[in-house]
Amino acid sequence: MKFTVLKTSGRARLGRLELPHGVIDTPVFMPVGTQAAVKAISPEELEAIGAQIILCNAYHLYLRPGHELIREAGGLNAFMNWKRPILTDSGGFQVFSLKGMRKIGEDGVLFQSHIDGSKHFFTPEKVMEIEQALGADIAMAFDECAPWPDEKPSVEAAMERTSRWARRCRQSHVQQEQALFGIVQGGTYGDLRARSAEQLMDIGFPGYGIGGLSVGEPKEEMYRILETLDPILPTEKPRYLMGVGSPDCLIEGVLRGVDMFDCVLPTRTARTGTLLTSRGKLNIRNACHTRDFSPVDPECGCPLCRNYSRAYLRHLFMAGEILACRLATYHNLQFLTDLMAKIRRAIANDSLVKFKEDFFIKYGYIDSFSADDHAQ
Amino acid sequence: MKFTVLKTSGRARLGRLELPHGVIDTPVFMPVGTQAAVKAISPEELEAIGAQIILCNAYHLYLRPGHELIREAGGLNAFMNWKRPILTDSGGFQVFSLKGMRKIGEDGVLFQSHIDGSKHFFTPEKVMEIEQALGADIAMAFDECAPWPDEKPSVEAAMERTSRWARRCRQSHVQQEQALFGIVQGGTYGDLRARSAEQLMDIGFPGYGIGGLSVGEPKEEMYRILETLDPILPTEKPRYLMGVGSPDCLIEGVLRGVDMFDCVLPTRTARTGTLLTSRGKLNIRNACHTRDFSPVDPECGCPLCRNYSRAYLRHLFMAGEILACRLATYHNLQFLTDLMAKIRRAIANDSLVKFKEDFFIKYGYIDSFSADDHAQ
Repeated sequence: MKFTVLKTSGRARLGRLELPHGVIDTPVFMPVGTQAAVKAISPEELEAIGAQIILCNAYHLYLRPGHELIREAGGLNAFMNWKRPILTDSGGFQVFSLKGMRKIGEDGVLFQSHIDGSKHFFTPEKVMEIEQALGADIAMAFDECAPWPDEKPSVEAAMERTSRWARRCRQSHVQQEQALFGIVQGGTYGDLRARSAEQLMDIGFPGYGIGGLSVGEPKEEMYRILETLDPILPTEKPRYLMGVGSPDCLIEGVLRGVDMFDCVLPTRTARTGTLLTSRGKLNIRNACHTRDFSPVDPECGCPLCRNYSRAYLRHLFMAGEILACRLATYHNLQFLTDLMAKIRRAIANDSLVKFKEDFFIKYGYIDSFSADDHAQ
Repeated sequence: MKFTVLKTSGRARLGRLELPHGVIDTPVFMPVGTQAAVKAISPEELEAIGAQIILCNAYHLYLRPGHELIREAGGLNAFMNWKRPILTDSGGFQVFSLKGMRKIGEDGVLFQSHIDGSKHFFTPEKVMEIEQALGADIAMAFDECAPWPDEKPSVEAAMERTSRWARRCRQSHVQQEQALFGIVQGGTYGDLRARSAEQLMDIGFPGYGIGGLSVGEPKEEMYRILETLDPILPTEKPRYLMGVGSPDCLIEGVLRGVDMFDCVLPTRTARTGTLLTSRGKLNIRNACHTRDFSPVDPECGCPLCRNYSRAYLRHLFMAGEILACRLATYHNLQFLTDLMAKIRRAIANDSLVKFKEDFFIKYGYIDSFSADDHAQ
């Protein structure tokens, strides 16, 4: 893996990330394909949308269909017929979200499958085995994600354990062509975040995830942590803000030095009829769209906006047709992919702050999504 | 509308049907898009599959989103962005399936919506108003469909009423560019079927539907009725066997003079993981496919068979991914569309009986689907 910062504008960075399956322009948004499929969308469509890299989840794929099966298939790219890069999340966040179904120790986490209740034990070494079997371009270390809000001592303990586990991940990760990223933890405590970053940098990773944010805390807390980390994290390595993807958080993250994002927001909200447009967001189920034969977004070039009316899409949602989810998901992913391209152009032109005012503030995207919309 | 029989081979007919939105090669299978969408598939995909004409349902579209809304949109083709011909079923079958929620009189049927329980009254004239507003290439008359099994007097009464309603439909149908087909009823009673056909031919229609079959009766009963009707129905008009679409019924229907078919079978069975292939049908959920990295059907050129393994498709089904329904539905429609093309070639070569032996019998398609698979 090779990362090059091509230009900075304030704290925002324009970069290029070279990976085994392709070269990525950053800042980048990664659509989420948890179970080796981006919900409702085909890999061919993702390519047409212009998605550069997608995220899959090691926890989910370990449980179903199993990482050994995917190794036999020739790895995730071959299994799901996606030719561009993939990043696998370790599943730390998912395992720690299994309330009442998990037991954490220094060696690892004992948990029960959300599918069938079967018992499993994840250690850093086991997770590295899984992620190397999946064979993505980028793997994430196995981390302990503290909930929000939480007392400082327990957040600190989870952060310190995350650092110890990061070292074990580093030691057991041998796949040369796969890049392993460490994950910064420490909740909303700036000093813990700084210490976490420094400990991970001592171990040394080719990139750094920023985890445990967008888990319920006010957005200002998240922005403050990003501002704390920006001068600490190495400028020559990519920074990945995990689980964040509302339009406002994307631009605020880029303005604070973030290079990579992922989130279920565009795909999940699409399936309930929420559409991101160049004039703000809209809920297509609203009665005002019943006889509206205009496109969802006249500025968008996706199949939904080229070929179908708001009235037709609303009908598909009201009638429970699968095509509704398909068209809406395609559109939302196209919108965020195009938005990231605009953000990159604005960095190139040193006009990102103006772009924020002209677009994000004008069309109500600042504060138009709650933390729930980011939920994993 | 213009119909030309290009060739006959035994009772099988090779034909060409010219409609406002395009020319169709017959015998033809029509995918079902009840609510102005073929479930899980886009119109662009239907074109790529080679679907020549699709079916929509007047009853469903009257209730949601309403025929007046579709008229405002410019008709069904414009509303759903499908450029090729459409046939609308009148909804007689659906209305008469609403057990305990309908009251039949000579003037029409009072029924409650399956969506919200609201009360509606369908007369032949009302249904013609709806179908003309939808603006399909072909509309079906409003018929009374008797259940199976039923006593002869009540089947006869429903058949006689269907003829009287057919006359009222004919009189109130004024749209020149839309062809109105009558529907033959009479259950499994050959003499009633013959009388029904003669009464409809007295009124005179450009094509004839054969309704009330594949509703639970043994297939041999259906084939016997088709044999009864073949010498009665005019050779120069298309015959449409309604609601029938399993591979064996398609070829048996063609061998008895049928030109058009529709059925939810390929789309509905796809969504539960049943795939039609050139070597018989298979259920992709079966454990034997878990580690099978070969394509579903190596002889098929659809995206599923070109790009994905059985193991991946099985994973998508087990994980509940929407992409599973998409890929399987595309494949089943491709299979039936290709099969109809092969049937047309076999008629052209006078080899249809041999094709039946080589393909349908060899690969277990004869009697491999029950009547339930056809259920509307």
